[in-house]
Amino acid sequence: MNVSSHQPATRELDDYLQSRRTRIEAALEGILPATPDNPLLIADAMRYSLFAGGKRLRPILTLAAAEAVASDGMNTDGLALPAACAVEMIHTYSLIHDDLPAMDDDTLRRGRPTSHVAYGEGIAILAGDGLLTEAFGVLARLPATDDPELNSRKLRTAERVAAAAGVVGMVGGQTIDLQAVGQPTHPKPSAARFPPQTPLDHASLRAMHAQKTGALIRAAAVAGAIMAGGADAEVDAVDTYASHLGLAFQIVDDLLDIEGSAVELGKTAGKDAAARKPTYPSIFGIPESRGLAAESIETAKATLERAALGGHLGAIADWVLSRTH
Amino acid sequence: MNVSSHQPATRELDDYLQSRRTRIEAALEGILPATPDNPLLIADAMRYSLFAGGKRLRPILTLAAAEAVASDGMNTDGLALPAACAVEMIHTYSLIHDDLPAMDDDTLRRGRPTSHVAYGEGIAILAGDGLLTEAFGVLARLPATDDPELNSRKLRTAERVAAAAGVVGMVGGQTIDLQAVGQPTHPKPSAARFPPQTPLDHASLRAMHAQKTGALIRAAAVAGAIMAGGADAEVDAVDTYASHLGLAFQIVDDLLDIEGSAVELGKTAGKDAAARKPTYPSIFGIPESRGLAAESIETAKATLERAALGGHLGAIADWVLSRTH
Repeated sequence: MNVSSHQPATRELDDYLQSRRTRIEAALEGILPATPDNPLLIADAMRYSLFAGGKRLRPILTLAAAEAVASDGMNTDGLALPAACAVEMIHTYSLIHDDLPAMDDDTLRRGRPTSHVAYGEGIAILAGDGLLTEAFGVLARLPATDDPELNSRKLRTAERVAAAAGVVGMVGGQTIDLQAVGQPTHPKPSAARFPPQTPLDHASLRAMHAQKTGALIRAAAVAGAIMAGGADAEVDAVDTYASHLGLAFQIVDDLLDIEGSAVELGKTAGKDAAARKPTYPSIFGIPESRGLAAESIETAKATLERAALGGHLGAIADWVLSRTH
Repeated sequence: MNVSSHQPATRELDDYLQSRRTRIEAALEGILPATPDNPLLIADAMRYSLFAGGKRLRPILTLAAAEAVASDGMNTDGLALPAACAVEMIHTYSLIHDDLPAMDDDTLRRGRPTSHVAYGEGIAILAGDGLLTEAFGVLARLPATDDPELNSRKLRTAERVAAAAGVVGMVGGQTIDLQAVGQPTHPKPSAARFPPQTPLDHASLRAMHAQKTGALIRAAAVAGAIMAGGADAEVDAVDTYASHLGLAFQIVDDLLDIEGSAVELGKTAGKDAAARKPTYPSIFGIPESRGLAAESIETAKATLERAALGGHLGAIADWVLSRTH
């Protein structure tokens, strides 16, 4: 699936991704600095997961969407970088909690022991709680401004991000996932309130991923478009683009789980099959899943063209399709 | 410690508390309605803990603080009720996560099985995550308004609440608590990153409670004062009042853990001693702890008088001192 890395466009994208990663990580450092003189265990645990070398796809989408709707000379970083950081903090919290023994029970993430392996379950739960909470603190606080228009954008952004992370989004999707997957080593209590597990069909699988992964990817891009003052039609186009991008991202993730090695992925490969998780390849097979992912990326890019949105969003879509880890 | 229940002032306060509880619970129903036609497990789990018959101290403080700073005829409920609900949702999330086996490992809360006993650990973690996330959604979304002044208040409120719930507040306090308490049934992994446990002295105990319990109580009251348009000096006075109130609340909580029965408390009594938790009575003894609590309430009420803040905040302080569960 990897496109050639010798195309000039790819090298330009690599430079772009790296420059934005650098800005995002500097901003995250400012939000959650290392405190060598007075080391707080909880801050240490939050930083352990936040600075574990993630792709930074979501905050890059925030910045790229802001740039795509911005007028010339606008300081998009000043406007969108806090929201980009907040989204990455929320993504990181979700990984920490998803990895817990009571959830996916994963011990390896981004090539390192997961948070609860390194710090214990209690601190891992709190590190996730802390990242989620501080993310909303960032959305409320930054950029620091008295401008009524910017305040209105900040509230719209926080509302969208909360919806994407909450019951109709990520938390709801993870709940469906938890109900659908057998967890042989951690049997659930036979509480009457826990409905019986049912296997997911295609529609349910898609709905689950739209909540669990898609919603935050969409909110990440939408946050950038809102913070940079995009018109409603532009914000909607960015949202549609990101929903197709998010679907492709998930399908590629499922394919990589089959095809990738643990070294490349930095997490346990073959985990889905071992957990009997329903995935795109398990329902459609590998070739059709690849086709679905490519189709979603084409639709995402067509959405950008129709809305006359330039910048790097199109190239990011190609990157999502071609990634190998 | 119970003051006479025959005083007319107490009956008036009872009526006030009950009327505000009714409003708060109706508003919470609107935010997280029961969905009999399409029962979502996660919403069910969130409601299980949110509607478990809590005292609603924090959201009542929000409303009472709003009323105390409001001018005549102001619709304080319209302004402050969403923030009151958000604070109660955050308080509920913290109880769910604190009760988890990896934290305090409690099986009884408000007279019912704790969330993880009723739903399993995974759903309990997600129910907490969902309540925390939706709380910030409420703060961003409600009251729905285009008024720049109200938008500014909403952002200030969200910022204060996030700080109170985050690393310098509740999450940080719970981390200190987790480090200070031996958990014989759930030994921590011997990770090098986990510093050795140290017993808390008085200053550390007070600092821990100021973060773990005090910060959200202060933010609850401050949120009401901000949303109702209180002047900076009024907001500060409400904050000072609530910090003394929060200390008294914690001391009374520690005393009730010794003196109360499980039936009255709705949770396991004697838990602190069994867990060798440092408490006010264990450090100061029962009589001096009672004195400290009474002193804090007097200071809280004196703060109100100095700032000429009327309404029910003073009577609420008396209630906190006299409560038996």
